[in-house]
Formats: sequence, structure tokens, C-alpha cells
Amino acid sequence: MNIEIVKPMDIEKRSMEIITEILGDKIKTLDEKNLHIIKRVIHTSADFDYADNLCFSDNAAEILANAIKNGADIVTDTQMAKSGINKATLEKFGGEVHCFIADEDVAAEAKKRGITRSAVSMEKAAKLNKPLIFAIGNAPTALLSLKELIDSGKLKPEIIIGVPVGFVNVVESKEIIMETHIPYIVARGRKGGSNVAAAICNAALYTLVQR
Amino acid sequence: MNIEIVKPMDIEKRSMEIITEILGDKIKTLDEKNLHIIKRVIHTSADFDYADNLCFSDNAAEILANAIKNGADIVTDTQMAKSGINKATLEKFGGEVHCFIADEDVAAEAKKRGITRSAVSMEKAAKLNKPLIFAIGNAPTALLSLKELIDSGKLKPEIIIGVPVGFVNVVESKEIIMETHIPYIVARGRKGGSNVAAAICNAALYTLVQR
Repeated sequence: MNIEIVKPMDIEKRSMEIITEILGDKIKTLDEKNLHIIKRVIHTSADFDYADNLCFSDNAAEILANAIKNGADIVTDTQMAKSGINKATLEKFGGEVHCFIADEDVAAEAKKRGITRSAVSMEKAAKLNKPLIFAIGNAPTALLSLKELIDSGKLKPEIIIGVPVGFVNVVESKEIIMETHIPYIVARGRKGGSNVAAAICNAALYTLVQR
Repeated sequence: MNIEIVKPMDIEKRSMEIITEILGDKIKTLDEKNLHIIKRVIHTSADFDYADNLCFSDNAAEILANAIKNGADIVTDTQMAKSGINKATLEKFGGEVHCFIADEDVAAEAKKRGITRSAVSMEKAAKLNKPLIFAIGNAPTALLSLKELIDSGKLKPEIIIGVPVGFVNVVESKEIIMETHIPYIVARGRKGGSNVAAAICNAALYTLVQR
């Protein structure tokens, strides 16, 4: 078995070179402003479908970066997404990551109303008095909850990263988010995940700092 | 947009039904003993490639379940994988999850030797005096480190879940693990991830408890 000798600090650079090679001419069809996000999602999944699946509203990558620069907090729907986001870098801009999914009050409220904890955790997040980025990698019901909060005027997020994964209402929830007036980065179709949500946040973070 | 009305507690069941439908006749070609793991990985990724990619050594699913039942600890290479594993369920059997990647002594040692923190974190884990399950979803260098520890007699894990994702030595590191005498569950090829590593652990955990 041939092991390529690559220094630890060069592994990511070499990975990105390989991704660029494999993308080949396809890269010319992708918007250069979004390329750092598309590549990082492929880096985190080894799944080139994301070159086709990822959809960006106008200037979404720039809006995401500016929101971070301006100190926005990030709200996730899973501890895993929270865990994957580079929180030390986010803190440099004054932002922090919230995930309310495991909160007792969220669980109690969800049980009472017969809805998901994910949905209730979005309602709790909407009460945060800060500019917010939502990074949703798991629950379509979180996206549907965001849509209701937006429509009722209770929430105006800076941008929604809508990349839940799965089989029940996942495709539909993403299309619904793309029809709001809120900036979005969405992985169209069934694919996505907490890792993808975190990768998109990190892609934006890494354009803002020297690593 | 048509939203399917599914109660929160039924979403996972409905997802698994849809996965079974999509797998179709393919399901007959898969070993029934591994099916709960294959389906849960597809559930976490929406990526049906895993029906082909996942490779199991003899009785791997049973060995993993037995290790958990016997109180084995799980070692991950990322905080994200640790975050995704159902730790409350693991605790019922006396196990806990370790991840040493962010430890200061690991970082210092990695810098000194010019190797990855992932590799050093495996050496630290090998010193745990308990039956160990390794769940590696990110770093091929963690797998290569495990191989060295096994060959030198410093480690004899119960099973290795080898599902790193990426482009530099990822394919090769998995093949190397499959050539050891240690039981394995490996996602052959470039694909995998911390989410996949956690999903495999959770699939085993969920066969052992009523949820």
C-alpha cells in the first residue's frame, strides 16, 4: 500500500488540490465567490454531488462572511454541528454558537405540543437579541419552524444554512426556505448533515483569518 | 410544497421505511446481520453508496454489540464523532467516549515529532486500561497509528470502525486496517466522516436498548 508522505500542516492544502483536480472543467461552471464553500463541503464529505446540490442566494457567501465579521451568533440544530464549528475563530469576531436541542424546557415544550425538539429549539433561538446565522444540518422541522417565525415577523436571520439530511420532508423544507426573502445556502435534495452545516460555517470563518 | 405529516416519534421509523423501499432488491445482497448499521449510515448521510462501501469483517456487528455490552469504551478521533455518539446509552453498559485530539500534551507531542495530533491521540488512547472500540471518522493518520500500535503489541482493540473521509491516504489507510487481524467495519474508498462513525456506534447501541 502506497502511503503519500504529507506533512500534517500540508494535508488540507493537498486535499484541496486533489479536489480541484477532480472537479476539472466543472469548476468553470461554479461561481468563484462560492468555491471555498463548495470545496470545503466536498472536503468534509468526499461527495462531489455537492458541486451540483449547493444553492446560494445572491451574494450568500459574502453575506455569511459579513455576518460573522459583524459579530453574529450561529444557531445549530444539533450538538454535532455545534461541535464541528471552529468556535475559537468565531469568538475572535464576538460570535458564539448556540444549540438548544438538549435543553429541558425545549424537551418539555415539544412534548406538550407534540412537535419536535428541533422546532421548539428554533423558537427559543429566535428570542436571542443578536444578529443570527442559522446552521441546520439535521432537522427539516427546524427549517419549517424558521419559516413560520420569519413569516410571523418574529425572526429575521442574517442567513440560513439549510442542509438537513434525510427522507421525511427534507427536500421540501429546503425548497420552502429558498422561497423566503432570507439569504440562504441550501443543499438541494436529501443530502446534507451536521458535518456539512459545520463545514459551511468554517469555510466562511477560514476566509476571514490567517490559519 | 407538500409536507408529509409525521409525528416526531415516527420520523425515524418512516425514514427507515423509505430507505428500505429505495434499497429495493439490493437489500437481498446485503448481510442481514449488518443491515441495521448500513441503514443507519444511509439515514445519517442520505448516501446510498454506503450500501456498497461498507465492509464488515466476520461477525463485526455482533463483535461491536458484544464489546459495548461488556462495557468497552469508545475512542474517537474528533470531538464531532464523540458529540454524535449516544453517550447516555453507552453509559448504561459502563462505557464512556474518549477523544484526546484537543489535549495540550497531544498537541505538544505532535508538534515535537512532526506528526498529526490524530496519530498521537491514538497512542494516548492505547494506554487506557479497558476494552476499546475505535471509531475513526476523520483522520487516516489515526488509522495508520492504530496499525503501528497493533503491530508492536501495544494495543489490541475489540474492533476498529474505520471510516475517515478525504483525499490524502484515506483509501490506503482503510485497506491497511482491513489487513490486520482486528475486527473492523470500514467504509471503503474516500467517503466516511465523523457522522458516519457516530452512526455506526449508535446503530449498535440501539439494538441493545428499547428506545
